[in-house]
Amino acid sequence: MMVKAIVACCQLAPRVGDPAHNLQISTQAIRNAAKRGANIIVLPELVNSGYVFQDRAEAAALSESCDGPSICQWVALAREFDVVIVAGFCERLEAGQVANSCAMIDASGVRAVYRKVHLWHEESGIFTAGDQPPPVIETRFGRLAMMICYDLEFPEWVRLPALSGAQLLCAPVNWPLASRPKGERPAEMVKVQANAAVNRLFIAVSDRCGEERGVDWIGGSVIVDADGYPLAGAENLSGEGLLLAEMDLSVADDKSIGLYNHVHRDRRVGLY
Amino acid sequence: MMVKAIVACCQLAPRVGDPAHNLQISTQAIRNAAKRGANIIVLPELVNSGYVFQDRAEAAALSESCDGPSICQWVALAREFDVVIVAGFCERLEAGQVANSCAMIDASGVRAVYRKVHLWHEESGIFTAGDQPPPVIETRFGRLAMMICYDLEFPEWVRLPALSGAQLLCAPVNWPLASRPKGERPAEMVKVQANAAVNRLFIAVSDRCGEERGVDWIGGSVIVDADGYPLAGAENLSGEGLLLAEMDLSVADDKSIGLYNHVHRDRRVGLY
Repeated sequence: MMVKAIVACCQLAPRVGDPAHNLQISTQAIRNAAKRGANIIVLPELVNSGYVFQDRAEAAALSESCDGPSICQWVALAREFDVVIVAGFCERLEAGQVANSCAMIDASGVRAVYRKVHLWHEESGIFTAGDQPPPVIETRFGRLAMMICYDLEFPEWVRLPALSGAQLLCAPVNWPLASRPKGERPAEMVKVQANAAVNRLFIAVSDRCGEERGVDWIGGSVIVDADGYPLAGAENLSGEGLLLAEMDLSVADDKSIGLYNHVHRDRRVGLY
Repeated sequence: MMVKAIVACCQLAPRVGDPAHNLQISTQAIRNAAKRGANIIVLPELVNSGYVFQDRAEAAALSESCDGPSICQWVALAREFDVVIVAGFCERLEAGQVANSCAMIDASGVRAVYRKVHLWHEESGIFTAGDQPPPVIETRFGRLAMMICYDLEFPEWVRLPALSGAQLLCAPVNWPLASRPKGERPAEMVKVQANAAVNRLFIAVSDRCGEERGVDWIGGSVIVDADGYPLAGAENLSGEGLLLAEMDLSVADDKSIGLYNHVHRDRRVGLY
């Protein structure tokens, strides 16, 4: 049975310390994507808060709990348009702790929250790392999983939701810009392509853009098919923008390659 | 301490059923590469026998043991030029069994033999699968590991020699040609790039070319650096040819990314 879905990745430029602006751009992006027919809408990492915090106190001040204003607004939009939204947010935990989290939201409300497990750069001084695997959620548009940015660089981590039946992995990211050889795709995108291909699942990455306190970003949002090839975003967007791709998510249920091979059953688990 | 090495991947067109031709082209390729200054020379999978066997009996007839004519010739060449050779060969086992193997050879002789663990397509009807991890061998030119073709599509497998300190992974392959979107690199190459980047090690892939019994090949030989970017082979060779790249293999000893991250220590092993 075909499971056609239109997936959107909204590449945005949130501003650290300006939550009103950030809520306005995420709202506008979701409205735009929904009006273009998107069923599943992915927003960047920490889209409610910005990324380059001075310290944990600043992150805590910009954090919100799972009934905070951004989440409530996204729930309202998911209901209005009957879409699934996956968005990164700075999550308020107990006792001044914060997590780098993302929420999966549909018309019924918040379906799951995931906390980034692999922390990047100075994040370990700011965020409490997650210790739970990426949830795999049955939605009206397919079985979806989510993880955040540096998590994608650990193939063992992507295996988990793939083995649990995820058809589409939604990944809010903030990919810092680094030099690379001319003509080469960023290694971050290459890793996403490989993760998709070795698991035969779709991956939708929503990156940010817009320099923030001297840090710039790849702006490498990309939607990759189950063979590992980009459906949208093969060429980087130069700033804010929207990627859209239609796909048959049931393709990800078939892990076979030809008559003899199967990307999951061919694993020699006893040897790893 | 820098560990400069010149690595060669020889893309060749062996012919199934013509071992004399195959030995002649592997000899010539090693001589050429050595004369161009190569220290480490990688040849394709099953370079002594060709690939598209009718059945196990044909493979067995074309197989050779570790003191067979190809291995002996490669040992003589490794001595003559003081190089390391990694080459795929059809290995004769006991009782009519055969393995899809590769040998690492230096001036002292055969250092290690590895048997392909993840079998592709009809190989499971022909070859006995290996059950040993890729050996990591200290050579005069660096710490080298090897694996074969479809093995590379299991990131768990590449992790093993990387965690054991391999600086360069040498991979004889026979990558069958499949359709892909225009302008896209083959997914096989993308997986190699990702494997290199997530482990910060170098990978040298030697592919074959030359149609054989209706099967054609990517001809995707590539040498990838520890950031995951090609040093040679970014554009596919169109037929037989030689890739050469100089690298400092000690770069692969440093698994750090910036001040805070480390591609191996950042793994959350208890969660996988």
